Amino acid sequence: MRRIIGVDPGIALAGYGIIQGDAHRMQVVASGVLVTHKELSLPQRLLALYEGLSEIISEYNPTEIAVEELFFRRNVTTAFAVGQARGVFLLAAEQQGLSYFEYTPPQVKQGVSGYGKADKKQMQQMVKLLLGLSTIPKPDDVADALAVAICHMQFSGWHQAISK
Amino acid sequence: MRRIIGVDPGIALAGYGIIQGDAHRMQVVASGVLVTHKELSLPQRLLALYEGLSEIISEYNPTEIAVEELFFRRNVTTAFAVGQARGVFLLAAEQQGLSYFEYTPPQVKQGVSGYGKADKKQMQQMVKLLLGLSTIPKPDDVADALAVAICHMQFSGWHQAISK
Repeated sequence: MRRIIGVDPGIALAGYGIIQGDAHRMQVVASGVLVTHKELSLPQRLLALYEGLSEIISEYNPTEIAVEELFFRRNVTTAFAVGQARGVFLLAAEQQGLSYFEYTPPQVKQGVSGYGKADKKQMQQMVKLLLGLSTIPKPDDVADALAVAICHMQFSGWHQAISK
Repeated sequence: MRRIIGVDPGIALAGYGIIQGDAHRMQVVASGVLVTHKELSLPQRLLALYEGLSEIISEYNPTEIAVEELFFRRNVTTAFAVGQARGVFLLAAEQQGLSYFEYTPPQVKQGVSGYGKADKKQMQQMVKLLLGLSTIPKPDDVADALAVAICHMQFSGWHQAISK
């Protein structure tokens, strides 16, 4: 049985979701958000994110991390800010020996819903269904983190995903 | 006498330059580049950058870090990649207690050359002159890292720079 962490990085708010199982049956181990105060300096926020994710990985011991590729984000400022958060997340995962996988947004949609152009609502319904949850995970950052984790569980059940 | 590290982050190549002195007289303590192999995975490259900068900070003990604000970069993919490298650099600095300062490109030009629209060649000549070097530092990433360090030494000699 595999245990995968999906993350949706951000400076102010970052979602994470840990799932276990296989491509046919999976469940949530833990999920939530890391929140950083805007009164903190940028390096302090990055440190809080890094320590937060490091503790979560230590506690739940996932062996694989899945992240959405964000090269397609339209906004340079957002891409730059998210990049900084993503950098410290990947560092935390690497230091604890997790394997790293990334997927494009259409791949995540395909992997979760079977349809590469699924909308946000369809995706969230599929996350709820596949994980046997009674409600849609909130906030969206948690649903997004769980979605990329599910995508990785699904794809790598069918064929070997490419590790980058 | 203050000791400042300037950095120019990047995934494949990152420049750093440590200077000491005051706004009237400054010299290079150490400078160079951190290079990561493209055969490494992205998390492995981020770990190499993080460990590299952490060692440099431990060895030379700068107490302030200066970085250029990069929100103005035109390319989303570049901004995202650079953001990841910048994230692990700021984390390394924060873990060792450095104060953090960032400057826009026109501020760096103003601080180093006295002219907010100086070109690359003028900037590199000023870096060489102000640091009493016999040649222009190479590659450009080192000159850029030294420039932002000089900018911070200059500005914060005149007035209190804003720590973000």
